[in-house]
Amino acid sequence: MPISTKIKASLTRTSWIRKMFEEGGRLKQLYGDENVFDFSIGNPNLDPPESFHQTIKHLIDNHQSGQHGYMPNVGYIDVRQSVAEYLSTEQGITLSPDDLIMTCGAAGALNVIFKAILDPGDQVICPSPYFVEYGFYVDNHGGTLKTVPSTPDFYMDIDAIGKAIEPNTKAILINSPNNPTGQVYSRGHIEMLAHVLEQKSKANGRSIYLISDEPYRKISYDNIKIPGILSCYENSIVCTSYSKDLSIPGERIGHLAVHPKASDKSDLMQALAMANRILGFVNAPALMQRVVARMQGKQIDSGLYQSKRDLLCSGLKKAGYMFTVPKGAFYLFPKSPIPDDVAFVGELQKENILAVPGSGFGCPGHFRISYCVSDDTIVRSMPGFERVMKKLL
Amino acid sequence: MPISTKIKASLTRTSWIRKMFEEGGRLKQLYGDENVFDFSIGNPNLDPPESFHQTIKHLIDNHQSGQHGYMPNVGYIDVRQSVAEYLSTEQGITLSPDDLIMTCGAAGALNVIFKAILDPGDQVICPSPYFVEYGFYVDNHGGTLKTVPSTPDFYMDIDAIGKAIEPNTKAILINSPNNPTGQVYSRGHIEMLAHVLEQKSKANGRSIYLISDEPYRKISYDNIKIPGILSCYENSIVCTSYSKDLSIPGERIGHLAVHPKASDKSDLMQALAMANRILGFVNAPALMQRVVARMQGKQIDSGLYQSKRDLLCSGLKKAGYMFTVPKGAFYLFPKSPIPDDVAFVGELQKENILAVPGSGFGCPGHFRISYCVSDDTIVRSMPGFERVMKKLL
Repeated sequence: MPISTKIKASLTRTSWIRKMFEEGGRLKQLYGDENVFDFSIGNPNLDPPESFHQTIKHLIDNHQSGQHGYMPNVGYIDVRQSVAEYLSTEQGITLSPDDLIMTCGAAGALNVIFKAILDPGDQVICPSPYFVEYGFYVDNHGGTLKTVPSTPDFYMDIDAIGKAIEPNTKAILINSPNNPTGQVYSRGHIEMLAHVLEQKSKANGRSIYLISDEPYRKISYDNIKIPGILSCYENSIVCTSYSKDLSIPGERIGHLAVHPKASDKSDLMQALAMANRILGFVNAPALMQRVVARMQGKQIDSGLYQSKRDLLCSGLKKAGYMFTVPKGAFYLFPKSPIPDDVAFVGELQKENILAVPGSGFGCPGHFRISYCVSDDTIVRSMPGFERVMKKLL
Repeated sequence: MPISTKIKASLTRTSWIRKMFEEGGRLKQLYGDENVFDFSIGNPNLDPPESFHQTIKHLIDNHQSGQHGYMPNVGYIDVRQSVAEYLSTEQGITLSPDDLIMTCGAAGALNVIFKAILDPGDQVICPSPYFVEYGFYVDNHGGTLKTVPSTPDFYMDIDAIGKAIEPNTKAILINSPNNPTGQVYSRGHIEMLAHVLEQKSKANGRSIYLISDEPYRKISYDNIKIPGILSCYENSIVCTSYSKDLSIPGERIGHLAVHPKASDKSDLMQALAMANRILGFVNAPALMQRVVARMQGKQIDSGLYQSKRDLLCSGLKKAGYMFTVPKGAFYLFPKSPIPDDVAFVGELQKENILAVPGSGFGCPGHFRISYCVSDDTIVRSMPGFERVMKKLL
């Protein structure tokens, strides 16, 4: 066998999201871009803010020697200073550059975190439905991911999470606003979870980390408040990317922030820095570090996604679909009208509509729609959604 | 223990290179930049070609919708097309975009390769002295690195490599021009190695990959020819970064190329693409992909490094140091005048000269000088090198 046995097995259960994204490419070649309704992937359709382009040009026009060279593995000190200032307000706790590591997006940050904290056989718990890549990220570093079903309206089931915790549970991984459901956890939810984790850490005789993956934090609706995780629990790590709020997912820039009072903080920061280095990231891309340092607090207009959400929800409601209205991110996770979500997504595909089966998020019987697409795509896809519903009723 | 036991152990044997780089930062603050002779890290002192800046500005001025969005995990097709064309000439074999994956530098590429091919306990062999990060890259994915000492003038000892191959040997990893020695392997060397690998693969009943890490390919001297590995052996994978030849190591952009006739090529490419995705790289940074596509064949003036080499070699020779003159890269690996290379490097440090002990490359009794520094640094460091030599004689 020339390739790894483990990765060979993984290839057969490869990402549904990527599968549909690639199917989209095929259909678009066949029928033309405008005749394929691609709701498969969270690839923001909004352009980055104009200040993103201006910032790059400014940096290039005023380039200084060594601007694209190596720097400390954790990132430039002035970049981390700028992020720390913004994040202190956002998270409601005072952070310093030493609490931060610039990363290759949130996916890079999560791999760095798991490499730094997991011993073989350690367990990470995550509420489902969940972003399936999490399973790979944990497995990469010798851990196992255990999922705990959420409530029917996609809130965490905190009692069930508490019961799922075992002596080898190293971390709880949450994602709010959530992919694929768009649900947002309140401060009350986080505080209840924190309380459980404090008790269980004591019982286990070792800390359980709370890891919050929050790339959609800045995309929330109806003025809902997203709580600062770091202000709720000491052994917490927040990670994010600028992919969604600046519409630059291809650039791979994000950061992680560790609570200043996390247990063995100095060891943890050293381990994270080393993991960032030896996993081959070395450092987050230099130019993009400088760009995001100058764009703290700037973002695309999330009101545009809110109006897309409203357009989609009203159309699908009229067509008879059932769903929980998302409070953030740009995903809707309706019930599949038939139990077999994969078959259902196949029916949508016959209408050139690409969605992802709930099975791809550990939650069969549902499907995910990424609505970071043009309003026109949403409007023109509706007759297809209606026809499929009628056909299956 | 809040952090991983394995990484905790690794922290104690962390990189000598990074340690000296950080010591450099400390000394510079104390004595001023100009009074510290920092030969610790391969951070190119030359600025990127002016066309690098022009290309970025052109891309930003003419930015198109989705320019910073997701793309296939392996990278843009037009970028891979452009790299394939250039690489076909360089490697002496026809490559297509399907043979290529754009990566987060060569360190990212190596992690992707090892994730894709290694099963637990698989062995990777590498000639020493060697870039010590290789040990971590292999270990990250469950393999073990076995090193085979090179000849006294730093050529591969091909007989010894052949004898070191065991049934669980999955790959040979070479690096030419070499870090830390600056040695270059000829086509003859590579062909002899290929012959051994063909025989041993047959004997083992499974392919042994030849992985060539070549970030210094374009920095070679005296018109020496660097052979194309892909034209010598079918089961070969070449990886590189643009860090050194464009002076942009902070930007994390590189690629890997697989021989079109490698065994189970399709599985291998899928495994590599998946590894790139799930390790958290997702894809190589988007803007830098487009930049390097437009800069194939362009590079900094390696003649400048050659004159630095000459300046350094003549100075050190006069001072009584012994070394093999490097044919490429920007490293010199002289013998330490005393057997204890760590103590020797400590003596240099008293002269504000920062070098890395050979122990940091699995080769005690030597030290590494990175001469990608200003000519002035080289010239003004010489009295310090002389004083240390006199003191120790």
